[in-house]
Amino acid sequence: MSKSIFSKIANLSLIINCFNKLIAVVLMLFMVSITDAQNFNRKIWNIPNIPGFITLKADLHMHTVFSDGTVWPSFRVEEAWSEGFDVIAITDHLGHHYKNNVDDDNFNRNYEIAKPIADKLGLILIKGTEITKRMPYGHFNALFLTDLHKVDKEDYFDALKAAAEQDAFITWNHPGWKQENDIPIWDSIHENIYKSGLMNGIEIVNKNYYYPLAFSWANAKNITLMSGSDIHDPATAEFDYLSGEHRPMTLIFSKDTSLVEIKNALLQKRTILYYNDILFGNNELLTSLFNASINIQNAEFTIDADSKDNYYNYIRIENKSCFDFDLELAEKDNILIVTDKILLKANTISIINLKPAPRDIKGEKEYVLKYKVKNLLKAPDDNIIVDFPIKITFI
Amino acid sequence: MSKSIFSKIANLSLIINCFNKLIAVVLMLFMVSITDAQNFNRKIWNIPNIPGFITLKADLHMHTVFSDGTVWPSFRVEEAWSEGFDVIAITDHLGHHYKNNVDDDNFNRNYEIAKPIADKLGLILIKGTEITKRMPYGHFNALFLTDLHKVDKEDYFDALKAAAEQDAFITWNHPGWKQENDIPIWDSIHENIYKSGLMNGIEIVNKNYYYPLAFSWANAKNITLMSGSDIHDPATAEFDYLSGEHRPMTLIFSKDTSLVEIKNALLQKRTILYYNDILFGNNELLTSLFNASINIQNAEFTIDADSKDNYYNYIRIENKSCFDFDLELAEKDNILIVTDKILLKANTISIINLKPAPRDIKGEKEYVLKYKVKNLLKAPDDNIIVDFPIKITFI
Amino acid sequence: MSKSIFSKIANLSLIINCFNKLIAVVLMLFMVSITDAQNFNRKIWNIPNIPGFITLKADLHMHTVFSDGTVWPSFRVEEAWSEGFDVIAITDHLGHHYKNNVDDDNFNRNYEIAKPIADKLGLILIKGTEITKRMPYGHFNALFLTDLHKVDKEDYFDALKAAAEQDAFITWNHPGWKQENDIPIWDSIHENIYKSGLMNGIEIVNKNYYYPLAFSWANAKNITLMSGSDIHDPATAEFDYLSGEHRPMTLIFSKDTSLVEIKNALLQKRTILYYNDILFGNNELLTSLFNASINIQNAEFTIDADSKDNYYNYIRIENKSCFDFDLELAEKDNILIVTDKILLKANTISIINLKPAPRDIKGEKEYVLKYKVKNLLKAPDDNIIVDFPIKITFI
Amino acid sequence: MSKSIFSKIANLSLIINCFNKLIAVVLMLFMVSITDAQNFNRKIWNIPNIPGFITLKADLHMHTVFSDGTVWPSFRVEEAWSEGFDVIAITDHLGHHYKNNVDDDNFNRNYEIAKPIADKLGLILIKGTEITKRMPYGHFNALFLTDLHKVDKEDYFDALKAAAEQDAFITWNHPGWKQENDIPIWDSIHENIYKSGLMNGIEIVNKNYYYPLAFSWANAKNITLMSGSDIHDPATAEFDYLSGEHRPMTLIFSKDTSLVEIKNALLQKRTILYYNDILFGNNELLTSLFNASINIQNAEFTIDADSKDNYYNYIRIENKSCFDFDLELAEKDNILIVTDKILLKANTISIINLKPAPRDIKGEKEYVLKYKVKNLLKAPDDNIIVDFPIKITFI
Repeated sequence: MSKSIFSKIANLSLIINCFNKLIAVVLMLFMVSITDAQNFNRKIWNIPNIPGFITLKADLHMHTVFSDGTVWPSFRVEEAWSEGFDVIAITDHLGHHYKNNVDDDNFNRNYEIAKPIADKLGLILIKGTEITKRMPYGHFNALFLTDLHKVDKEDYFDALKAAAEQDAFITWNHPGWKQENDIPIWDSIHENIYKSGLMNGIEIVNKNYYYPLAFSWANAKNITLMSGSDIHDPATAEFDYLSGEHRPMTLIFSKDTSLVEIKNALLQKRTILYYNDILFGNNELLTSLFNASINIQNAEFTIDADSKDNYYNYIRIENKSCFDFDLELAEKDNILIVTDKILLKANTISIINLKPAPRDIKGEKEYVLKYKVKNLLKAPDDNIIVDFPIKITFI
Repeated sequence: MSKSIFSKIANLSLIINCFNKLIAVVLMLFMVSITDAQNFNRKIWNIPNIPGFITLKADLHMHTVFSDGTVWPSFRVEEAWSEGFDVIAITDHLGHHYKNNVDDDNFNRNYEIAKPIADKLGLILIKGTEITKRMPYGHFNALFLTDLHKVDKEDYFDALKAAAEQDAFITWNHPGWKQENDIPIWDSIHENIYKSGLMNGIEIVNKNYYYPLAFSWANAKNITLMSGSDIHDPATAEFDYLSGEHRPMTLIFSKDTSLVEIKNALLQKRTILYYNDILFGNNELLTSLFNASINIQNAEFTIDADSKDNYYNYIRIENKSCFDFDLELAEKDNILIVTDKILLKANTISIINLKPAPRDIKGEKEYVLKYKVKNLLKAPDDNIIVDFPIKITFI
Repeated sequence: MSKSIFSKIANLSLIINCFNKLIAVVLMLFMVSITDAQNFNRKIWNIPNIPGFITLKADLHMHTVFSDGTVWPSFRVEEAWSEGFDVIAITDHLGHHYKNNVDDDNFNRNYEIAKPIADKLGLILIKGTEITKRMPYGHFNALFLTDLHKVDKEDYFDALKAAAEQDAFITWNHPGWKQENDIPIWDSIHENIYKSGLMNGIEIVNKNYYYPLAFSWANAKNITLMSGSDIHDPATAEFDYLSGEHRPMTLIFSKDTSLVEIKNALLQKRTILYYNDILFGNNELLTSLFNASINIQNAEFTIDADSKDNYYNYIRIENKSCFDFDLELAEKDNILIVTDKILLKANTISIINLKPAPRDIKGEKEYVLKYKVKNLLKAPDDNIIVDFPIKITFI
Repeated sequence: MSKSIFSKIANLSLIINCFNKLIAVVLMLFMVSITDAQNFNRKIWNIPNIPGFITLKADLHMHTVFSDGTVWPSFRVEEAWSEGFDVIAITDHLGHHYKNNVDDDNFNRNYEIAKPIADKLGLILIKGTEITKRMPYGHFNALFLTDLHKVDKEDYFDALKAAAEQDAFITWNHPGWKQENDIPIWDSIHENIYKSGLMNGIEIVNKNYYYPLAFSWANAKNITLMSGSDIHDPATAEFDYLSGEHRPMTLIFSKDTSLVEIKNALLQKRTILYYNDILFGNNELLTSLFNASINIQNAEFTIDADSKDNYYNYIRIENKSCFDFDLELAEKDNILIVTDKILLKANTISIINLKPAPRDIKGEKEYVLKYKVKNLLKAPDDNIIVDFPIKITFI
């Protein structure tokens, strides 16, 4: 990204060099302005849609000065739009705006400030809150609410039920928080919440924490996989953007951009979590996303066993997405020797080198190379496997 | 680009943190390997095709140890493929392999070494040479040759004619070289070459030099605009890739990838030169390339003059190409106040802010915003103008 | 900077590769944590002290939610510390906390929130405010105040006098604001303020605006050169840090880190402004800073006119500072031919190539190469000149 | 690094904006030049000297077209100087210049081409070669040679002895090469070489390979730790510099820059290997290098157990080196709770947060915080431990 910006400015310097050299510089005592919109633009993530669904980039967990955050709600909208998100929810802790004591009487004010700006920018804003109770209950996000005041109940179960009455989508947040070694505990309280249909989703990634145990629970109990940045400061202060880090992103595969369909997508567990190039999801969605990202440029080869030139045969694989895919050969073949580890970098064409073992094979053969994608997790200890079909004519 | 790589590796560190914490690390005294193909991959430039033509990325001027360069020909191929080029020519100085005294008897050997590797990688290799004579003749590239030995003539005009006999495309290189202040001089010699049909193209960008005067000549005399890196060292040693600089790229708009059509494209002047985000070309090609790069996301607005909310109305412009476009309003409007300077960064959505001046206008109106693209040059002192049509309903 | 981070993490990936290869991966269902302090660290700017003074990095103009900003005061402190600043002032608009309506009764609360955190981090916090009046009066920062409430006067002149009674250092901010073409106008009002000793400094850089005319006034009228970021959002949202941009920095050359000496330094005009590698200051301070940044590694040469090897003679110049210095030869010499343009990049050793013209000179000679530093401005149209003394023995 | 370059150029764009706005642009049809020295400069690595020794940055294993490499020897010198190395050896495979068949009669020619350029740049060039024999003998570098022809013996042992007769420093290269799973085997041949005093060093890092088993051998048998890039292509093509990777660097701790003392340093095992921020060495050298890199800015604290403010107490640790240090608490303390994981990033001040556990302690106490440095390896499975002494007054 920095390339093109840089190049552009270099042009200008090139042109002014010319001035410096060949014409007298006119004395300038005037004001120099740069438009105030200069830095206000939106990053494009090269994340493809998948068959049947559009891919929405969401962060549904964040705070403002209306609880214990350090930024104004309008900034959350501009920040998310600028970072390329499509959908956000501001989820300030429910109750008095405790830590900062700002405008304690109106629990909906953060949403009211944020909504008009979101509309101007085309960002989808979901009204929500974080129901914040002492352990072992923990914290739950309630999304798609209409009125936060009605959810402000002393008892955690009353609060969750009140949220459910507004048809909220409810998520158990950072499930290992305040537990020993941060390992989540599925208490009878959580069993009760789950059984009562009040736990639709569970965060397996919160901030820069990952909860493998919660991932297993979600798979076993059929709960939607969720992630959340849980940012309190500006995102750039909590994640190291200068080094390429980004806050967790929940990819939602939705029929359209309506709130109704977004909620449907969440209820039907159509999410993939994306954090620092690990993607967490189910086998079907991960495979669809991989296949929509990748393109094999040449899959047919003619190899002459007698030629000294047959050592290098390059399968070229194009990855136009923003994801790196870290592949490792899943099954060795007796005949074909292929690159066993390959990183399909974002926006790059990578190579699988195909070296036929010396054999007396002639004619046209078909193979399917099978690679494990190490950073596409369908369970804490399991990866998806992807196929590259190729055809070789041995002469 | 660095983002995703980084993220990917961060994953791994995250996983190993887990190991460090919770399991005993098994003593390892074994070899650790990283696949040797790791860094050998190809950058994708997001440069669109234009209606009727595919866009080929070319560098048709470079050297190897077979003249006064410092690299082996095979490296030129791998380097260019890796940098995302589609077409190259190795143009070692014709004659004995002078400076390095390597293999002086075979002028075609650089091509012979490079060709098999180019074929494996799918890179198009054009056979060429740089006919190198003392000033004021200067240097000329002859491309699409079959045999270099036949072109090796003492007299510059004999050499050019011998190249023409092989149907070469001939370019005058770095026309200001060795002239005072590097300003090119159109000598009677060049007039003669031009009149004899032996000057098909002219470099207006060579290395990091730009020759505005040659640009004017090319426009006036109907000569193809050419650029060349003229690299002698590895490209990374001559351009500051770490800062985002890249070597000049000649975009060739061709019907297909055949040598015949590439030569046709050059003869028909279908080139744009791309260096440090200045694009040099004719109005038609530049406009096509801009339009293929840009997408206006929302062009219809309803504005309520009485609302205090009418101050911000954002036209969102998507730029999925790798080019930055540096726009400046070409014509101010009496009614609409719009952002007057805007940088449409590569892979970014940018905003034109539309502030209606307070007026008694009602109903549906259509406007065409006209912007000058400062870094798309159709002549040394002239830019293309682009249009953004919008529709406003004033209520 | 990104290099070493990256490398570090690469190590870990290297080690885990080993695991993947040679041991069975133990099933892990446990929580993975990364310390919460991970991203909270402080950039080191390689800016040298100069003889007699320490160099303090200051931003004395910024806003919070306690006027029309979007961040909490504690964040301003952490942000500035993290970006490597030594001294800041929060200068919310004086009066009711207008736009955001937060805590309107206590004008000092922003300071009270920020101070304890500043102390923990060792950041120097100056109490201040922006006295905000309609044009043509404009905005003035009053720094080193003790009580903001006493300065809250209707009349601009009363407010400035009340600030002066607290021994404030007073700066005219963004002097071209709301003027036609942003060109500042020195009104009789400003003449009166200046004559009354109520204008100690003037911003010649505000945000990404530069006011050359104000620079001239400051030089002519002996007013301290000031810059200010005037940030309302997080700094990362107003400046393009991903591309290497940073907010303006006022370098203060002080005897020590006490508020007394910092105010003295400001009153005695010991400032240099640093924005996007232009440095604005007086000749003496700029020259001191340049000389403290640069080290000539080899200044003595023996040149044999008869040797073909005498073409390249490299003067190596070390620049350990974070500044790039953009040099252009100020005086051509008849005997020595030296590189006429050179960019002394930050943290880099650059080369001046010395090619003796063919002459009949023998023996030891001394020269002083004089270069103009194009990005070190002592006036809008004037640069400092620096010297490189060298000695050559011609044999 | 990119920051300041960028900023610098932005200035120029800022100035030309002014032109665009306020003066008519003069038609320019002249040549624009950028000095050819522009990109030829040298990176500064912030690597400190240690008490008694200067730290030299070396790569003593690389190839050119004079064996099977792809670059000319002069380029190796310029490349290494530019990347900030102090010492290199070109170690082309001994024998005919096999693969490329260039200039087969003079085995010393690569050195003869490289030496004058090295001298101009102040780079130390060691004459050497790689004695290349079939497995199981393998490859050995012989450094500090005077005449390569005398070492060109058929038998590997004769060749090593001939090198020893020229007082060469001899290194066993990439010891796992061509072995199963790349795990090195200490054959009787190697035992014999070692016993005969013909194995002074051993590569434990070659290219991007690390041989933990060889590291153990080196420690057990008292052999010098060595690394080598073994580059055949330009370094930028073999390592991913755009992502911050660099080729392995052997740090040599020498009394001065003479060849005699450099050889002494190697013979006395004063090396640390630096690759992707892992440092491999002995405990003493690693600890010296760490201590020379780090500075604790504040080590004395007063903590009031009754204050709610006592939660955050920041120990600020300055790291002015180019190394990241990845620390993990080695011993937990019952009284002090401190950050247990901390990355001391290069050119950054990092924080250890000190939270006193609630206890009835009063008065002045001294503690030594002990951290393991995870990326400073003194053995394949062992790290150095570093100390941070602090003093706390509990009130």
